[in-house]
Amino acid sequence: MGGLPARVLGVGTALPGGAVDTAALAGRFGMNQVWQQWVDAFIGTRTRHLAIDLATGEQRYSLADLAETAARQAIEDADVSVEDIDVVVFGTATPDDLMPATVNVVADRLRIDGIPTFQLQSGCSGAVQTFDVATALLSTGRYRTALVIGGDVIAKHYDVTADLTGVPPEELVNYVLFGDGAGAAVLSTEEREGAPVVRSVLTRLSGLDRQPGQVLRWFGIVDRDGAAVPASEDYRAIAESVPVLAREVADELLDDLGWARDEVDFLLPPQLSATMTAKITEALGFPAAKEVSRVADIGNNGNALLFFQLRDLVPAMSAPSRAIAVAIESSKWIKSGIALEAA
Amino acid sequence: MGGLPARVLGVGTALPGGAVDTAALAGRFGMNQVWQQWVDAFIGTRTRHLAIDLATGEQRYSLADLAETAARQAIEDADVSVEDIDVVVFGTATPDDLMPATVNVVADRLRIDGIPTFQLQSGCSGAVQTFDVATALLSTGRYRTALVIGGDVIAKHYDVTADLTGVPPEELVNYVLFGDGAGAAVLSTEEREGAPVVRSVLTRLSGLDRQPGQVLRWFGIVDRDGAAVPASEDYRAIAESVPVLAREVADELLDDLGWARDEVDFLLPPQLSATMTAKITEALGFPAAKEVSRVADIGNNGNALLFFQLRDLVPAMSAPSRAIAVAIESSKWIKSGIALEAA
Repeated sequence: MGGLPARVLGVGTALPGGAVDTAALAGRFGMNQVWQQWVDAFIGTRTRHLAIDLATGEQRYSLADLAETAARQAIEDADVSVEDIDVVVFGTATPDDLMPATVNVVADRLRIDGIPTFQLQSGCSGAVQTFDVATALLSTGRYRTALVIGGDVIAKHYDVTADLTGVPPEELVNYVLFGDGAGAAVLSTEEREGAPVVRSVLTRLSGLDRQPGQVLRWFGIVDRDGAAVPASEDYRAIAESVPVLAREVADELLDDLGWARDEVDFLLPPQLSATMTAKITEALGFPAAKEVSRVADIGNNGNALLFFQLRDLVPAMSAPSRAIAVAIESSKWIKSGIALEAA
Repeated sequence: MGGLPARVLGVGTALPGGAVDTAALAGRFGMNQVWQQWVDAFIGTRTRHLAIDLATGEQRYSLADLAETAARQAIEDADVSVEDIDVVVFGTATPDDLMPATVNVVADRLRIDGIPTFQLQSGCSGAVQTFDVATALLSTGRYRTALVIGGDVIAKHYDVTADLTGVPPEELVNYVLFGDGAGAAVLSTEEREGAPVVRSVLTRLSGLDRQPGQVLRWFGIVDRDGAAVPASEDYRAIAESVPVLAREVADELLDDLGWARDEVDFLLPPQLSATMTAKITEALGFPAAKEVSRVADIGNNGNALLFFQLRDLVPAMSAPSRAIAVAIESSKWIKSGIALEAA
């Protein structure tokens, strides 16, 4: 990247409502004790936060609501003002509407105007993709400060009236794995002492000849009464491929920067489920790195997750220290990562 | 922009099926002669191409199908190979699915892998937004050649069984205005003689305190039997604001580049409808410019339209010549433009 490097000046996050534990989900969907034990053993995600009211199914938070809250917190945390924001990049798989893009609804609420705004249609690598686009835009020198946002709200596909007793495990697990939330960060070429520098951002499509590991559909008026499954995952493919792709992207970051594995102080591993994250962290093999994970408490909230990890990481990064974040998108397979350094 | 400027090496486009004239629409939806005359007088769009079979409603082309065809044509037109593509940026309001992103389905079909791919959730400014992101990525020096793609397919919201007799004009017009299609371009920092240089790309959110001029919804399993209107437009607001915003963005491009109004040889005006485009072209006031418009024949196909204009423009740009393209997104109001020069 030419010119001054981007730094992370501040991070914000937002969760809807209180924590929903697995017992509450089991109660709502009529699942038994065995199911709860199965979730504990094989998923490990204890709680998640939902944009809907679990009792009524009513949607209480939109993606724009959560993103607005996270963005305000990031701007405050960065000690900048809304007028300092020169460009906004937002990532989500689940926009509130197709148009207007949620990024522009959020910008409007923040009184941001007259600048470029972009919304990426993205999955679990979305936060890294927003960093990739934002740092490229900052490196042009035309902008000094970017607001990046990521979030997902699965309310439109979360049916509290569903009878889950006959549902196969690979669909059932969706109700346990996912959560809603949003996060944001302020990136800037301002030379702020103590603010971690973005040393490298890397996103790589890695889908050639692989079937999608995840499909998430939307319906129009034509197909709205159809039988298409709204969300499906190939968890076997995910369990096989994610550790490999995570290792590849971590290695590429280290090679590019000339960092040794034991020089990394913090590892932000992919956040698919608590159980899988533990396995991947082991496979990544960073002997000196402190793990920063949130998935066990907030579920897989897609484009938001990395921002939750960053919210914990950034205050903990005293100079000198180095951090590697890895995220893998399993829908058509994107491996991605970020290297941060407090120097 | 630092380093070498980006050039447009090639352009491709794709339309589904044959041209559907207004009489065919009228026949399908039981509209009378008066309605056809009203369309001719106030909309001016004569034909459009649809991804569905108008008789059966069956979807015959996906967005990925059209985008793949357009991308192959652009790559061939640019006289590069798929291996030369270093990054892909795709813009659409109507992805085939939420996940995987259509960009990655298309990349896979083209045997593109191992590079960054991005999909913007975008409207009528989407093609310019893909140029904005792609040229920023190219200016980092990490990439040499970008494939940009834009397209829309409204099949999921196009109900051929609808009874349109009681539908108010502001909804009815959607059936006339829109069309399906995709376009693509190859941008590169390669110093190719004759290939127009991208002198400036500009996108600006301009929505402060404006209501959305267009809303396009998606439905999940929860709200799929709801009564929400899938698409609505505020055509009065659009007719008022688009000429003003178009003028602002054209003026900003000229100011930035120090170009005089009469030094512009080609004008690519916003393509809302044939009638509105004619008004906007007049309001833009480029005395020496040849207008390049396609909307009367292909309808408003959103993210694709600018690529159709570019497909006509680029072969016509002999050195020295200058072109200005303007696009306005009315959902939450984005003004955007591109300046090209053959030198």
